[in-house]
Amino acid sequence: MKTILSGIQSSGKLHLGNYFGALRQHIQMQEQGDAFYFIANYHSLTSINEGEEIRNNTIDIALDYLALGLDPQKCTFFAQSDVPQVTELAWILGTFSPVSLMEKGVAYKDKVAQGAKPNIGLFTYPILQAADILIYHSDLVPVGQDQKQNIEICRDLAGKFNHNYGDEYLKLPEEHIVESVAVVPGVDGQKMSKSYGNTIDIFDEGKTLKKKVMSIETDSTPLDEPKDPESCNVFALIKLFADESKKQEIAEKYRAGGYGYGHAKNELLGMIEEYFAEARANRKELANDLDTVRDILKEGGQKARERAEEVMEPIREVTGLMKSYTYSSN
Amino acid sequence: MKTILSGIQSSGKLHLGNYFGALRQHIQMQEQGDAFYFIANYHSLTSINEGEEIRNNTIDIALDYLALGLDPQKCTFFAQSDVPQVTELAWILGTFSPVSLMEKGVAYKDKVAQGAKPNIGLFTYPILQAADILIYHSDLVPVGQDQKQNIEICRDLAGKFNHNYGDEYLKLPEEHIVESVAVVPGVDGQKMSKSYGNTIDIFDEGKTLKKKVMSIETDSTPLDEPKDPESCNVFALIKLFADESKKQEIAEKYRAGGYGYGHAKNELLGMIEEYFAEARANRKELANDLDTVRDILKEGGQKARERAEEVMEPIREVTGLMKSYTYSSN
Repeated sequence: MKTILSGIQSSGKLHLGNYFGALRQHIQMQEQGDAFYFIANYHSLTSINEGEEIRNNTIDIALDYLALGLDPQKCTFFAQSDVPQVTELAWILGTFSPVSLMEKGVAYKDKVAQGAKPNIGLFTYPILQAADILIYHSDLVPVGQDQKQNIEICRDLAGKFNHNYGDEYLKLPEEHIVESVAVVPGVDGQKMSKSYGNTIDIFDEGKTLKKKVMSIETDSTPLDEPKDPESCNVFALIKLFADESKKQEIAEKYRAGGYGYGHAKNELLGMIEEYFAEARANRKELANDLDTVRDILKEGGQKARERAEEVMEPIREVTGLMKSYTYSSN
Repeated sequence: MKTILSGIQSSGKLHLGNYFGALRQHIQMQEQGDAFYFIANYHSLTSINEGEEIRNNTIDIALDYLALGLDPQKCTFFAQSDVPQVTELAWILGTFSPVSLMEKGVAYKDKVAQGAKPNIGLFTYPILQAADILIYHSDLVPVGQDQKQNIEICRDLAGKFNHNYGDEYLKLPEEHIVESVAVVPGVDGQKMSKSYGNTIDIFDEGKTLKKKVMSIETDSTPLDEPKDPESCNVFALIKLFADESKKQEIAEKYRAGGYGYGHAKNELLGMIEEYFAEARANRKELANDLDTVRDILKEGGQKARERAEEVMEPIREVTGLMKSYTYSSN
């Protein structure tokens, strides 16, 4: 069975664009192998220097993923900081990484071009990311196109390490670029994105949700005239929720006339509510029982640490680093 | 009681220049506070990619220091890799370090000027060093002039961290520059240094030692003529071993004539042998009982880890990093 690895970093409240663009497929990965999902809190420190925010983000991500179907029986779900060996491996990998390799980093170059003064955490981010991947002997790392370079850096560092020490101590992960499968429009018709302020959030409900759905921009075709579903933002969202026959049924109503955008919006609202009803209920329940959430992460952390130790032991041996301690769950 | 910290990195066989220049004072520090001595094996990885060499260096350093009087009852003596939390703290500190701060590093700039292509380990060396210092709440870090900049970087990072989180989570160490107290000439009269190939090693003995002492360069003043002790390489070494009256006695022999350089060399040879007799015997005994040496380091490692955890716990709390594991000695 292949080991699949995926790091999750908070980007605030999740919206329909996140869900249909990547998150749904992301969660489905748990069916496809021995999947490790970690909440990348060490990485978050490169941009967030506020403890409460890091802590809340960690819990929010856990609630979101668990509510949406991530199953700790099927995968290993944990916080990165529960596997501190990644920082140890990152140090070791750093000794195999020319400074110039980091200077070529696209994300780093972008920041510098924007006039930012990046910190060392951001500069060496790809090394910690490589450690995250390599420490579980990950086979597959599903990432977006923007992460392609970092997977190459990871393979490069693992290859250098293995070459130097003469054996395959680190497993080179396969590249697995995930294309965003659905383009989800926001309420203004542009791509749904937090930065455009045009999102409908997964866990919105009641008046907030209704207000957002009702604000979706449409043209001014009068109610009784025929309409083109394919050029309508409301229909573009309906397509994400409806099955084939439902989709056709609504498209016909559009074309027949006498069906207004208000009708379509109400239909969409009902679909969103139904689709995420279970996830919303789950999230509320879990949010009232954070101890269970913490226990899930704790258990995942232990499993992940054990795997990490299996990989680290021969690495400490071959690099000559002695060690006279063990990790235990507390 | 002040906490004193000192990292030791292997520079191969120790010679008289090391001993009288720094090592003797270094070991005496154990009387002056709560001293932590660590063998910097994580740091060694920046230049040595061969496990056997790292392992042997670690044991050699331990044997040298223990034989020369480092007392594990008086201080905490351990291998850096037994306190893996330093790599965790280094990651955290890196998020407070602008890339430009590392680019100003003197050691790094020297390497680049020499045309070397430094690795990230070398580039971020001052950050790991800062973590080494800060993780024990060290008050005093006796270092040579060449390390002055790195102590400033350490204070800088600790200050930034404390300022951001609003309390003194990290203790700023005092600077404590140790000037090399004795200039020790090598057998050719230049400063004794491994790179000049002119050393007399502390643990040399028998024929090897005799041959080196006999090869000390002197002028060609005939045996029966008076000689100037102050311009003689042999006498410069004798001064390190002899007490005041012995020193005067020999100086008088020099000035009186009838006392040849061969006599002086024999006198020096006897002094070296006597001075290090106990250390040599200790080293042989310990070398036959490496389990004891490993136990000493292991015990020191545990003490150091416990101290490190005391410092790290509030840091994890304030940065928002969760943790559900403990370290235990195995």
